[in-house]
Order: sequence, then C-alpha cells, then structure tokens
Amino acid sequence: MKEKGKRKKEKVKSPDASGFAIGVDLGGTNLRIAAVDEGGKLLEKITTDTGIARPRDEVIAEMCRAIQALAKKRKADGKLAGVGVGVPGIIDLKSGMLRGSPNLAGWHDYPVREEIERRLGTRVMLENDANAAALGEKWLGAGREVDDLCMITLGTGVGGGIVLGGRIWHGMTGMAGELGHITVEPEGPPCGCGNRGCLEQFASAKAIERMSRETAAGGNAPALARVAAKRGFSSETVCQMAEAGDSAAQEIFGRVGRALGIVLAGLVNTFNLPMYVIGGGVADAWEMFSPAMLEEVRRRSFVYVATCSGASGPKTVITRARLGSDAGLFGAARLALQGLRG
Amino acid sequence: MKEKGKRKKEKVKSPDASGFAIGVDLGGTNLRIAAVDEGGKLLEKITTDTGIARPRDEVIAEMCRAIQALAKKRKADGKLAGVGVGVPGIIDLKSGMLRGSPNLAGWHDYPVREEIERRLGTRVMLENDANAAALGEKWLGAGREVDDLCMITLGTGVGGGIVLGGRIWHGMTGMAGELGHITVEPEGPPCGCGNRGCLEQFASAKAIERMSRETAAGGNAPALARVAAKRGFSSETVCQMAEAGDSAAQEIFGRVGRALGIVLAGLVNTFNLPMYVIGGGVADAWEMFSPAMLEEVRRRSFVYVATCSGASGPKTVITRARLGSDAGLFGAARLALQGLRG
Repeated sequence: MKEKGKRKKEKVKSPDASGFAIGVDLGGTNLRIAAVDEGGKLLEKITTDTGIARPRDEVIAEMCRAIQALAKKRKADGKLAGVGVGVPGIIDLKSGMLRGSPNLAGWHDYPVREEIERRLGTRVMLENDANAAALGEKWLGAGREVDDLCMITLGTGVGGGIVLGGRIWHGMTGMAGELGHITVEPEGPPCGCGNRGCLEQFASAKAIERMSRETAAGGNAPALARVAAKRGFSSETVCQMAEAGDSAAQEIFGRVGRALGIVLAGLVNTFNLPMYVIGGGVADAWEMFSPAMLEEVRRRSFVYVATCSGASGPKTVITRARLGSDAGLFGAARLALQGLRG
Repeated sequence: MKEKGKRKKEKVKSPDASGFAIGVDLGGTNLRIAAVDEGGKLLEKITTDTGIARPRDEVIAEMCRAIQALAKKRKADGKLAGVGVGVPGIIDLKSGMLRGSPNLAGWHDYPVREEIERRLGTRVMLENDANAAALGEKWLGAGREVDDLCMITLGTGVGGGIVLGGRIWHGMTGMAGELGHITVEPEGPPCGCGNRGCLEQFASAKAIERMSRETAAGGNAPALARVAAKRGFSSETVCQMAEAGDSAAQEIFGRVGRALGIVLAGLVNTFNLPMYVIGGGVADAWEMFSPAMLEEVRRRSFVYVATCSGASGPKTVITRARLGSDAGLFGAARLALQGLRG
C-alpha cells in the first residue's frame, strides 16, 4: 500500500508569500494535492492514483502521507495555514462527515474531517467538490472580478456551488448548492436523488450518454446508433459528432442547453447575481449547448433580459469556467486560507 | 385631492423606545402607513384609500402628507430613523426607480425615491413589497428565531423575498427574489413576464381563477361551473368549495400545492435555509394546498428529507406567514431602521 501511488510532480518557483495552504481534490479515480500561496500561486502539485473508489483507509492514509510530505517540502514558503479537502459528496458541516452518496460506499457516517485532522495534527476544511470549484473560480478564474457567483459543474453528475460575498454559501447544514437536483421536467426521467426530471438527468455526461442511446434506439439516427454501440462510447464522442455536424447529436446538446437554461433562468430570477459559471468536463462542449442555453435564459428570465449585454447598467454574465479541473484544488486551498470551518 | 383619503386610525400606547421608523405599504387599492419603534412595536397605523392605481402625483402627495403628519404626531416617541416604502413592482436599487410592471403605469422611469426624499427632507428606502414582507416576517413574524429565510407571497401574482443574515438579499440590481417567475412546467401557460409555466401561473389568485374556469369548461365539475359563472367569483370562492368537500376545487388546490412544492424543493436544494414562509392572501387556503406541497417537496428534495422533522439535526421549516397583510408594513419600517439603501 505504501508505495502504490504513482506521482507526477510539477515544480514551480517559490514566491515571496507569507504563507500557503494545501488543497486536496479527491476524485473518483485520483487524488490531487497542491500547495498554493496566499496570492493564488501554485507552488507544487502532486497527482496520485488513489481515488475515492479505493478503500477508505487506504485513501486517507495516502492523502495524509502526501500532504505531510508536501508540507515538509514547502516549509521555506512560509506557514501552513491549513488544509482544504474537496470531496465528491454531501458534507455535514457540523460533524465533518459525508452523507450517503452512491460513489461513497464506506465513507458514510465516518468522521472524515476528524480523522484527517488527527493524523495531520492540523486544521482541516472538508468541502463538497463543486463548492470548492466555485470558490476556486471566484478566487482565480472566471469570477475574479465579482464577489458573488453561482457555478454549475457538469461532470458524471451535475454539482453546484454558490459564492456570496466571496465565501461559499453553505446553508444551514452545508447542503446548499445542490443545483443538479433542481427540477427541470416534473415528469422527466427518475434521478438517483429520488426526484424526477432533475437537471442532472439532462446535463450530465451520463445523461448525454442516456439520451444518445434513447435517440439511437429511436431508429432515426444511424450514425449515432453505430457509435453508441461501440466500446468506449461517451459524452465526448457525442460532442465530437455534434461538432462534425451530426444533427441528432446536435439535438442532444440542444436538450442539454435547454435544461441548463431553465435552471439558470430560475437562478437569475432568484439571486440576481453578476455571474453564473458553467464548469466540469461537459462544459468543453460549450459551443454545442450554450446557444440553446442562452436563448432559454433570455426567454425565461426577465431579470436576465433587464441585465444582459444589450441592457444599460450592471450586467449578468453567464460564462465558461476558466480553471478546468484545477478549480476544486485551488478552491480547497482557498478555503483553508479563509479559515472557513467545514 | 387634499382631503380625499379616508383614514382609519389605530392608536397604541407609546413605549419607551429611543427611536421609530415609518413604514409604508403602497398597495393596489390603498396606502397604509405605520409608525413602528425599534422594538417592533406598532405605535400607530393609518390606512387611506389612495392606492397605486390612482394617479402617481396624487399618490405621492397623499403619502408624503400622511407621513409628515404621522411623524409630527409621534415626535414624543423619539427620533425618526427614516421611512421605508414597499411598492408592488420591480425596483432598481441604484436609481430608486420602478421598472415597468403592468400595475404601475406612469411610475416607470420616474425617480420615485428621490421625489419622496425631496418632499420629506428625509432618507427613504424604496423596496419591493414582497421583499419588505419577507423582512417583516423575519423581524416579527414566523422567522423571528432564524437569520435566513425565503418567503413566497401568493397574491394576485406571486412574489418572493429572500432574507440572508437578517437582511434582504437584493442581488446586483435589486431584482433578486422573483420567485413567482421560476419555471414549474417548461411548456405551461404563458406568463406576463415572457416565460411559460411560471409558479405564478399555478399559485396566484389569478391562476386559481383561471384553472377553475378551465376545469369548469371541461364539463365534469358542475358545481364549480355554476360558481365560476357568477359575478364576484374569486379564488376565495374556490377555497370555500374545496373546504366544503368539492373534489374539483380540491384538485385545483392540489395543483397549487404541487407547483409550490416543485419550486420550494428547488429552493431548499439551492439555499438549505432553516425556513421557507408562505404568505399573501392565497396562503389562507393553507389547509387546502399544503399537503400536496409538502408531499412534493419531500419527493423532490433530498436536502429537505435530510433536514425535515423526522431527521436528526437542524430542521428545515416550511410554514405559513404570521403577520398577514402587516408584514410589508413592518418590513418597510425595519428597512428604515436598518438603514439599508434601496
């Protein structure tokens, strides 16, 4: 177990920072750890193959070892302000435990934060990965110029994070920002969360694959049917087909955009924020889904119409994320620097 | 014009407060003005028949006269902290102007706040009436024990107000909280806001009347058809019929509850607040729509399920408003006491 994690290291020159934090992004297949200074400069980044799918104790041991090694190595960069850990699950703010999630077997009702703190002897902030990504984008990405933003992350599932006044809005128990489970179609496809027609059922990678198979089964999309039958078929394949002009694939991204637009319109009418950011792997298909998305927001939100690019006064910006998969890593480090509990 | 406003006065004994504010609620048919002390005690309330449907200059003149008379009269109660005015319209925070609204002909692009301030020589806070009601409920009503709440007001239309950290969440331009225009049914009835299937199209008094007429026209609800054909038919009539056991009328309130539940579930998943308050005249039909509403929230929000009365830890409360039509009046006074601009 000890030497299992393959490491790729990226060294960056040390800045003159007065302190730094360590951000951790615990994904499905790998664990990434970065030292980031107060100015947002990446000091060093490590990637190991110990993702959350591996046994819990193994993941925690590897994580703590890597954090300690990195902290020791970066001692010259100043004081370690703390450690932030982004995790793909629902976190109970108070207890620092994960609530049940399909991807988190064995982590439920286990005192994750406490256990990491005990091993490291330092303060640890545990955070939902989409919340961490939203904070990362606010700090160093698309949202640098605003104090408030809402981010939707389109990955295997759909996550969300809300930043108000520069800080993550956690809500009462840390469960705020579950934007992927807002209803789009009241009688739509059932969702793992218990609801039907959630945004996640239309705008996640899994949903794109499901919709593609449904379309293929309909018999009127032969090219899509051929591709969908192959091994390794994924939402990226559908995106490539849409880009190449396949109308069935384009139609699927139209549905992605429409669902996102319905939810964004509701968020704009609710929050009236200066910025909404779309991130996650599926956001790479931005060109394919954003026209339908923006058309839908315009049609469904008079608050957007009153504040979009054609209007006078402050603007509502709907944009792509800028930090890619590093958003959560930076956000986790930022959390530690902010000293937020949770 | 001078002596037109009929006044009903309610005197209350003066407290030992160090100051007071004047709250104004400018409704469709009347204008209500109250002096409220810092402890939330109502010192005096005046109602005139000069509502926002009357000519703009007449309304403003009457309002200012009544405010001045009340301020003079309550001089012994301490310093006048300011004046808050709740208006049924979208307010531009920065300019203090009203944005267009079907009920506000002649008020659009007119510097309402500036004009009132000029006449009174005192600071004036102009606020959307649903926002003011939400703040009133937080201060003295259902939300006294919480810092954060979301309120939906079911009146002729559907409004909303969000209170975070004890203050109204205005958003970037003061347009936040337009919860009545969140999409419930993407292909539902067209709404005046430009969208389709807004909450307002299912949960407002007007929507209840429309749905009743539609049901009556269907031919399978003879009792409802008889009532709907009469003069003075209103949502209250439908509520009385539902209470008396008419299944068609009950079905309509089931639809009201379902739509509210869909929107509330999204709000719970988004905000994770301790409290959601339902107010406005239609909330009097609480017993008729709340079972369907709560069932829908439970089905559609795992955040609610994790925090509802059966779960351990902090609770999500969904409840009726407590202050009735005075919520906006108290909230407007509170705004002035908080010294919030807008």
